Amino acid sequence: MSESGSEALARFSINQMTVKQLSLPELTSECVKLGIPGVGLWREPVQSYGLERTAKLMRDAGLTVTTLCRGGFLTAIDPHARVRAIDDNKAAIDEAAALGTDTLVLVSGGLPPGSKDLQGARSRIAEALAELAPYAASRGIRLAIEPLHPMFASDRCVVSTLAQALDLAERFPSSEVGVCVDTYHVWWDDQAPAQIARAGRGGRLHAFQLADWITPLPEGVLNGRGQLGEGSIDLRSWRALVEEAGYGGPIEVELFNEALWSGDGRELLSATAQNYVRHA
Amino acid sequence: MSESGSEALARFSINQMTVKQLSLPELTSECVKLGIPGVGLWREPVQSYGLERTAKLMRDAGLTVTTLCRGGFLTAIDPHARVRAIDDNKAAIDEAAALGTDTLVLVSGGLPPGSKDLQGARSRIAEALAELAPYAASRGIRLAIEPLHPMFASDRCVVSTLAQALDLAERFPSSEVGVCVDTYHVWWDDQAPAQIARAGRGGRLHAFQLADWITPLPEGVLNGRGQLGEGSIDLRSWRALVEEAGYGGPIEVELFNEALWSGDGRELLSATAQNYVRHA
Repeated sequence: MSESGSEALARFSINQMTVKQLSLPELTSECVKLGIPGVGLWREPVQSYGLERTAKLMRDAGLTVTTLCRGGFLTAIDPHARVRAIDDNKAAIDEAAALGTDTLVLVSGGLPPGSKDLQGARSRIAEALAELAPYAASRGIRLAIEPLHPMFASDRCVVSTLAQALDLAERFPSSEVGVCVDTYHVWWDDQAPAQIARAGRGGRLHAFQLADWITPLPEGVLNGRGQLGEGSIDLRSWRALVEEAGYGGPIEVELFNEALWSGDGRELLSATAQNYVRHA
Repeated sequence: MSESGSEALARFSINQMTVKQLSLPELTSECVKLGIPGVGLWREPVQSYGLERTAKLMRDAGLTVTTLCRGGFLTAIDPHARVRAIDDNKAAIDEAAALGTDTLVLVSGGLPPGSKDLQGARSRIAEALAELAPYAASRGIRLAIEPLHPMFASDRCVVSTLAQALDLAERFPSSEVGVCVDTYHVWWDDQAPAQIARAGRGGRLHAFQLADWITPLPEGVLNGRGQLGEGSIDLRSWRALVEEAGYGGPIEVELFNEALWSGDGRELLSATAQNYVRHA
């Protein structure tokens, strides 16, 4: 890629899930080739490849690990399940530290089976964060609460808006807990711009992710995110909002899309980088 | 149904779409048999059966038409499309008046093709309402803006929250424009209780609908609403919220669900009435 291309990609990070058909070594070599400086990693493929081995791969290639996805799932009522969730999140924090990233993204978890109590679930997240935040800080890791689109409120994440995420985060120091703004999850929300400003004022914009919104949504709605520029989201204006709020960090592209996954991973990575330059 | 059953159904209304496999005469006779006092009607099946014929059917059976669904789709940019939309909504208002209901539900419309401008679309809804609200008032019809779940923001309804719906409604007299609260669309929103109170204070709670939230959502996400009691929504607490806000009107059950539609309509109607008594 040309020098101007490299400059245009200076803040670009590819979330590993976007090109999950690529192995970690393939992803790494392609990033180097295309001048992509950052990657967001996921725990499961990292564990499969090996934690230290992944960390070395990233270091040797000069890649920045912008985030680790993901901790969270902190809404269980059962005490044993809660202990397991805390332990698993501490492991995720340790993994983030080993990978050299400063940010662990949290997907908070949905309603426990049979429960209809969203507020209770949000309270349990706050309780869990009280234990996790200082642990994370001791490892040099910031937690980034990611509000997920309200269509995931029951089964994946009871934190549906940036306002809710900030209400949780602000119980803790900004160096410990902030938010992850993903355009796919917040684009519909006319309150989100003000909440981005609130997050910026508080130093809590810990991560920024892009995906576009396309319809029809697929069954289960998880894997229907749109390639940048192909959907309804004005990505540039969201980027401007986080930048006006003081965010100058990586811009991570995270697409879950069965159609994109069924194609060639290298071409997808290159196309995603081009669409980032064109649309974001 | 027993006398206590009839009393328990005193405010129940069945939205026609819930049991769309029933013809209008079948729906009418089953409602009479079960002691269901109200129905919410849809324009298309009413037009197929005949407007005056439907009105007579309802009157003769002593059924209250609680709402007509639906007007709206007011977000077009093209001037000709806008004129057509206004004309079509005036026709819907006339049909509502002919059916003897006082409420036309509005689904506001999604983004026009190629547009990413949610705020612009919301502004065009306000402009259209300025023309429609006095026309509706002259026919004795109230418009009820229904916020739809944010998963419909691009393709169906840019009004995603009760707050947005009230921001639009409050430009007009409460006798002309209010809101329709549907549990399926607002249940995830921690701001909705305060907005229900706001709507109640302003006399703008024009309709209340129930559906439950179940997952996984089907492809397209339109026809995956849950039978009452089978999902994540605390229906009783939402009913309590609208009643505390002063709402004493009909409680309409509106389910779109392919699995429910594939079964026997009479059994579905009876089961829905029973679930209403048990869960709402």
